[in-house]
Amino acid sequence: MIIVLKSGATEEDIQKVIDKLKEYNYGAHISRGENKVVIGAIGEKRMEEKILIMEQISSFPFVEQVIPILTPYKLVTKEFNPQGTRIKVNQVEIGNEEIVVMAGPCAVESREQLREIAGFVKEVGAKVLRGGVFKPRTSPYSFQGLGIEGLKLLYEVKNEFDIPVITEVMDPRDLDIVAEYVDIIQIGARNMQNFTLLKEVGKLRKPVLLKRGLSATLEEFLFAAEYILLGGNSEVILCERGIRTFSDFSRNTLDLSIIPALKEKTHLPVFVDPSHGTGNYRYVPSMAKAAIAAGADGLIIEVHPHPEKALSDGPQSLTFSDFRRLMNELKAIASAVGRRL
Amino acid sequence: MIIVLKSGATEEDIQKVIDKLKEYNYGAHISRGENKVVIGAIGEKRMEEKILIMEQISSFPFVEQVIPILTPYKLVTKEFNPQGTRIKVNQVEIGNEEIVVMAGPCAVESREQLREIAGFVKEVGAKVLRGGVFKPRTSPYSFQGLGIEGLKLLYEVKNEFDIPVITEVMDPRDLDIVAEYVDIIQIGARNMQNFTLLKEVGKLRKPVLLKRGLSATLEEFLFAAEYILLGGNSEVILCERGIRTFSDFSRNTLDLSIIPALKEKTHLPVFVDPSHGTGNYRYVPSMAKAAIAAGADGLIIEVHPHPEKALSDGPQSLTFSDFRRLMNELKAIASAVGRRL
Amino acid sequence: MIIVLKSGATEEDIQKVIDKLKEYNYGAHISRGENKVVIGAIGEKRMEEKILIMEQISSFPFVEQVIPILTPYKLVTKEFNPQGTRIKVNQVEIGNEEIVVMAGPCAVESREQLREIAGFVKEVGAKVLRGGVFKPRTSPYSFQGLGIEGLKLLYEVKNEFDIPVITEVMDPRDLDIVAEYVDIIQIGARNMQNFTLLKEVGKLRKPVLLKRGLSATLEEFLFAAEYILLGGNSEVILCERGIRTFSDFSRNTLDLSIIPALKEKTHLPVFVDPSHGTGNYRYVPSMAKAAIAAGADGLIIEVHPHPEKALSDGPQSLTFSDFRRLMNELKAIASAVGRRL
Amino acid sequence: MIIVLKSGATEEDIQKVIDKLKEYNYGAHISRGENKVVIGAIGEKRMEEKILIMEQISSFPFVEQVIPILTPYKLVTKEFNPQGTRIKVNQVEIGNEEIVVMAGPCAVESREQLREIAGFVKEVGAKVLRGGVFKPRTSPYSFQGLGIEGLKLLYEVKNEFDIPVITEVMDPRDLDIVAEYVDIIQIGARNMQNFTLLKEVGKLRKPVLLKRGLSATLEEFLFAAEYILLGGNSEVILCERGIRTFSDFSRNTLDLSIIPALKEKTHLPVFVDPSHGTGNYRYVPSMAKAAIAAGADGLIIEVHPHPEKALSDGPQSLTFSDFRRLMNELKAIASAVGRRL
Repeated sequence: MIIVLKSGATEEDIQKVIDKLKEYNYGAHISRGENKVVIGAIGEKRMEEKILIMEQISSFPFVEQVIPILTPYKLVTKEFNPQGTRIKVNQVEIGNEEIVVMAGPCAVESREQLREIAGFVKEVGAKVLRGGVFKPRTSPYSFQGLGIEGLKLLYEVKNEFDIPVITEVMDPRDLDIVAEYVDIIQIGARNMQNFTLLKEVGKLRKPVLLKRGLSATLEEFLFAAEYILLGGNSEVILCERGIRTFSDFSRNTLDLSIIPALKEKTHLPVFVDPSHGTGNYRYVPSMAKAAIAAGADGLIIEVHPHPEKALSDGPQSLTFSDFRRLMNELKAIASAVGRRL
Repeated sequence: MIIVLKSGATEEDIQKVIDKLKEYNYGAHISRGENKVVIGAIGEKRMEEKILIMEQISSFPFVEQVIPILTPYKLVTKEFNPQGTRIKVNQVEIGNEEIVVMAGPCAVESREQLREIAGFVKEVGAKVLRGGVFKPRTSPYSFQGLGIEGLKLLYEVKNEFDIPVITEVMDPRDLDIVAEYVDIIQIGARNMQNFTLLKEVGKLRKPVLLKRGLSATLEEFLFAAEYILLGGNSEVILCERGIRTFSDFSRNTLDLSIIPALKEKTHLPVFVDPSHGTGNYRYVPSMAKAAIAAGADGLIIEVHPHPEKALSDGPQSLTFSDFRRLMNELKAIASAVGRRL
Repeated sequence: MIIVLKSGATEEDIQKVIDKLKEYNYGAHISRGENKVVIGAIGEKRMEEKILIMEQISSFPFVEQVIPILTPYKLVTKEFNPQGTRIKVNQVEIGNEEIVVMAGPCAVESREQLREIAGFVKEVGAKVLRGGVFKPRTSPYSFQGLGIEGLKLLYEVKNEFDIPVITEVMDPRDLDIVAEYVDIIQIGARNMQNFTLLKEVGKLRKPVLLKRGLSATLEEFLFAAEYILLGGNSEVILCERGIRTFSDFSRNTLDLSIIPALKEKTHLPVFVDPSHGTGNYRYVPSMAKAAIAAGADGLIIEVHPHPEKALSDGPQSLTFSDFRRLMNELKAIASAVGRRL
Repeated sequence: MIIVLKSGATEEDIQKVIDKLKEYNYGAHISRGENKVVIGAIGEKRMEEKILIMEQISSFPFVEQVIPILTPYKLVTKEFNPQGTRIKVNQVEIGNEEIVVMAGPCAVESREQLREIAGFVKEVGAKVLRGGVFKPRTSPYSFQGLGIEGLKLLYEVKNEFDIPVITEVMDPRDLDIVAEYVDIIQIGARNMQNFTLLKEVGKLRKPVLLKRGLSATLEEFLFAAEYILLGGNSEVILCERGIRTFSDFSRNTLDLSIIPALKEKTHLPVFVDPSHGTGNYRYVPSMAKAAIAAGADGLIIEVHPHPEKALSDGPQSLTFSDFRRLMNELKAIASAVGRRL
C-alpha cells in the first residue's frame, strides 16, 4: 500500500507511520517528492492484516490518503482460474460458448401455472426454470410467496419436465431444504451483503446465482462472491440486475458495462436479468439482446402467460409470444458474437 | 387508485380494466378528459389486494400509469399515533424533548477498551453505549467481531456502568440471545430489507433501531418499519446513516432532509448516524450539529480512544477530546431548537 | 391533470382549487373516493398554462400531489412524426436501417493527426468524422482545444477526404462560424440544459447531435430537444453518453435502456457514445455492440492512432487496430438485428 | 504522481513509462514491491503538463492506476488564502462571523411583487435581495423570466430599498448589462460547467455566487471556481443547492456535508440554498437551520407572498410568515455556533 501524508506532516508524523508499519512487520520506503511525503509499505501480508492496517493508518490526522495496490480479493480473480469457471447443472454447462437462458414466473403461483410455463419455456429453448417461492417484497402487504409448498411444486415440475430449477433463498434456516429440492440457489439483490446467508451458502455444494445489490460497487459484488468461495463453494454465477440511480423511466438502471469489467477481473460466469433490470416488459427484449452482444454468458427472464393476472411483477414479465420472439432474436445475436443458444 | 390509459385505448380496453376492478369488488369511475381516458377505482380494500391489483392493471399494454392515492403503509403513519412514539429504555426516554446520544466503538474489541469508552461517554452525557459484536464487513478478510464473547462483555459493562447498550444483529438465529443481553437491537443498513430478520424482530418486545438502507427510498424505509410494527413490536427508531450517491468526497451522502420528511409522515423517533453518514471524523461534528438543528431526536456516534488502533472504522471515529467538545456544542444547538441534552 | 388533496382537506380547500382552475378556464371534476378527495381538471389548454397552473396548485398546503396526464412536450413525440425522422448529411442518411458510425479523435491536435485518422476511419466504414476544437474541460489547466484554427483543419480535411464532420460548440457566439465549417453540430452533455445555446441552435438549419446530460432524466432530455425543435430546427439526434451514478469502475454508467425508451416516445434518431459512456477503451467494444443490439441508430466513437500521446481522453480512445476489429464485429451485430453497416 | 503497473508488466513496459516521464522532464522512482511495480514520478511541473501526462500514462494498456498526489487546483485552496476570503457588497461582508441571508422570489414578476418582497425581507433581516429575470426552465413552455425589463426592476427596487441584489446570468452576451445593474452575479447549477460563462465571469470585478451542479463532485465544483479565479475575479461564493440522487421524496438531495469539506479545502465562503435543495417549502426551515449549524456562511432562500400565484417555483417558496419565523429561529442557531445574524 502507499501512504500519502498531508503537506505539513512532520518527521514525528512520518515516524508514527513507520512504527505502525513495523508493528505489522511491514517495511517502509520513504519518498520525499515534490511537496508531499509518500510512504510505500513493503511486505507480504495476509489479507486480513492488510485491510486492518490500511484503516488504522487512515485514522492518523496527518495522513491524506492510503492507496491499496493489490486487489483485496483473491479467490474470485481471473488469475486464480484463468480458463474460466464452468458450472454443470444436469446437462447444461454454464460459462462455455453456449448462452444459457433461465426463464419462468416471478413467483410460483400454482401447479397449473408452473406446469404451463415450464413446458413452454423448455420448448422454446430455456435451459433452466426460474420461480420464486420465498419472495422479498418491499411491502409486508404484498404476496410473500408459497413457501415450502411452492418448493415442492418446483421439485415436482422439475422432474416432470426434466428441467433444472432455480429459486431464491432469504432465510439461512431454509437453506437445507431448498438445497434438497432445487438445482441452483439464488441470492437476491437485497441480500447481496447478507453475510450470514453468504457464509451459509458457501458451505453448500450447489451452484449459486448471486445478484448484484442495488447500490453495490463492482468491488463489493466481488467481495460478496469471495465470501461464498472462501466457504468452499466455487460454483458462483454473478448476475447484473440493475442499479439504483436518479433515472426514473426504468425501475432500475441496467449497468451492462459491468459485463466486460467482470470478464476482465473474474473467472466466474456473468448473467444479466433484464426483467428486474428495467422493470418494464417493453424494454426487456432490447436489453436481453444487448447483454448477449456485450458478452454475458446467460440471462434470467420473467415469463408469465397472463402478466395482468400475475401475483408478482406482472409489469416486467414477457408473455409467451414475446418470449418466443425474443428467443429467436437472441439466436441471431449469439451467433453474431460467436456463441450459440 | 387512478388508472390512466394510453391515448388510443379502445372501448374494449376500458372494459378490461372495469372487469379487472370488478373482479376485486372495486367500482370504476370513468373520466374521458382531454385526449386520454382516466379511470378512478372506488372501494375500500385491504392493502394486500390494492397492491396486487395495481400491479396487475399496470401489466395491461394499454395502461400508461397507475397512480396510488392512499399511502400504502399504515401502522407507521403519523395518523396512527399523532402524539408520537416514545420509547423507554431504563431511565432514558427516546422521542421526547431530550436529545439522546448513543456512543461507543464501532466494534467491541476487549473488556478494557469497552470499559474505558463506556465510562467516558457516560461521563460526558451519552445515554446509551453502542458496540458491534457481529460486524457486517464488505470483505471476508476484515475483522468480523467478537460474537457471543463480545455480547457478554457488553452485558457486563452495561451492568457495571449502568448504561443501556445497543448492538447490531445480522442472523435471525442470534436474536434470542442478543435480546437477552442488550437493550436495543440494531438492524444495519445492509439488512434494512432483510425481511426474514425484520419479521423476527417484529416478534420481540425490544426497542429496535432500524438504519436506512444505502439506496432505500423513504417509502421503502417506512415499509421496512411497517414489517416490524406489523409483527407487534412498535418500538422502532428510524436512523438515517447516509445514502449512496455519485459524490465521492464522503463515504456516503448524509440525507438530512429526510428528518423533516419523516417527522411529517411517521410517529416514530428519528436518529442520525453522522459517523457512517460521512465516513470521516472531520465531518462528524458539523453533521451531528446539523442533524439536531434539523429536528432529529438523537444521534449514534462512533468514539474510540485510539482511532489509529481501532479494529474497525477508525477513520470515522471521534477521539475522546473531539467527542467531549462535540457534546458541549450539541448542548447549545439543542437549546437553540427548544430541546435539551 | 389530477389533483389529490391531503386527507383532512376542507370544503373551503376544495373551493380554492376549483377557483384556481376557473381562473385558467379549466373545469373541475370532484371525486370523493375512499378517504381522499381527488379533483380532475378538465379543459384543453396551452402547454404554458398547464405547467404554470400545476406549479401553483402544488403550492397549496392542503394539496398532496398534482399528477400530469398528458406528456408535457409535443414536437419530439412519436405521434408528431410516426414514421421517424431521417437526417441527410451529404450521402449519409441517419435514422434509416443503416447504422451510422461517427469516429475520430477526442480533440483535433494537428493537420497530420486529423488526416491520418480521417483516412483510416473512412476506410474502415465510418461515415462521419468527429473531432473537438472547443473542449469543455473540467480543469482550466487541461488542453482547451485548437479553437478556430482547429475548425479550419476540420474543414480542410472534410473536403480532402469527402467525409462530413461533427464538432462541439459551447459558446453561442461561435455558432455562426462553426455552422459554416462543419456538417453536424454537437451539444455536449454539460450543455444539455444550456438553454441559451439550445435556443440559438434551434435557429440554425443544421443537424444537431444533442448529448444527454450527466444527470438528465429522460423527460429533461426530451425537453432539451423540444427547445431546439421549437426554434424550427427539426434535425436533432439524441445521444446517450453515460450518466453519473455511484458506480465507480467506469467513468460513467452507460444507460442503454434509454434506447428502447426513446424509440417508444420520440421520432428522433438515437445514438450512443460508448467512449464517454465508459471512459475506458477496454469496455468500448462490448458497449458499442450492445448499443446496436439494443436498437441504436448509430455510434460516436473516439479513435486515436496513439492514445498514449493524445492531448485529451487517451484512456477511452480505441487504437486503429481495435477500431478496425470493432467495425467488423458491428457488421455482424447490425445484420443480426436486421440492419446494415 | 504514482503509477501502478498491472501484474505481468514487463521490463519493456516499465521502460515505456520512464521514457514518457522523461519526455516531460520527470524523474522516475521505481519500487518493485510485492507482486506489482509502482513508479513514482518526481519533478515540479506546471499543472497543465501534470494533467496531460497523467492521461497519457493511463492510456498504456499495462498501467493499472495513475494516482495524483497533489491537488490539481491551486487558487481556490485554503493554503492560497488561509485567513479566508471576505466579500464586501455595500455594507454587507460575506465570509465573516455574520450569517448573510439572501431572500426573494424565484422570478421577478412585477414591480409591485418585487417591492412588496424587498421591503419585507429587508425588514426581517435579509441582507441581499434575490430575483431571477433570466430563468433556466426545463420546459420551453414554462415562464422564461422578464429579461432586461426585470433587470431594470431589480435596479430600481435595489435603490429604493437600499439593498444589494443578486440575479442569475445564463448568456455570456448578457453579462455586461447585468453587471451594470446588479451587485452579485449568480451562475446556476445547470451552468456550473458552462466554461464559456465561467471564463467571462472571471473577467469581471463583481462577486459571483456559483451554484454546485446537480451531479458535480467536490473536485469539479472547485475546478469551476478555479476557472473564475484564474480569470482574475477572486470574489466567489460557493453554494450547495442539492444533488441528484435516487431519493425521490425531495426534489434534490441537499448535501450538507460538503460544508465542512469545503471549509477544509478552500478559502471561499460557502452558502446553502435550501429552497432548490429540497424543492419543498415544508423542508426548507429544517435545512436552513441545519446548514447554519453545519458551518455555512449564509443562505439563499425563496420567499413569495402568495406561493400559489407564483410564476415559478411556488412549491418551494416560503410565505412571509414562514420566513419571519425562520429568521428568528436562525438567530438562535447562529448564536449557538458562535455567529450572529
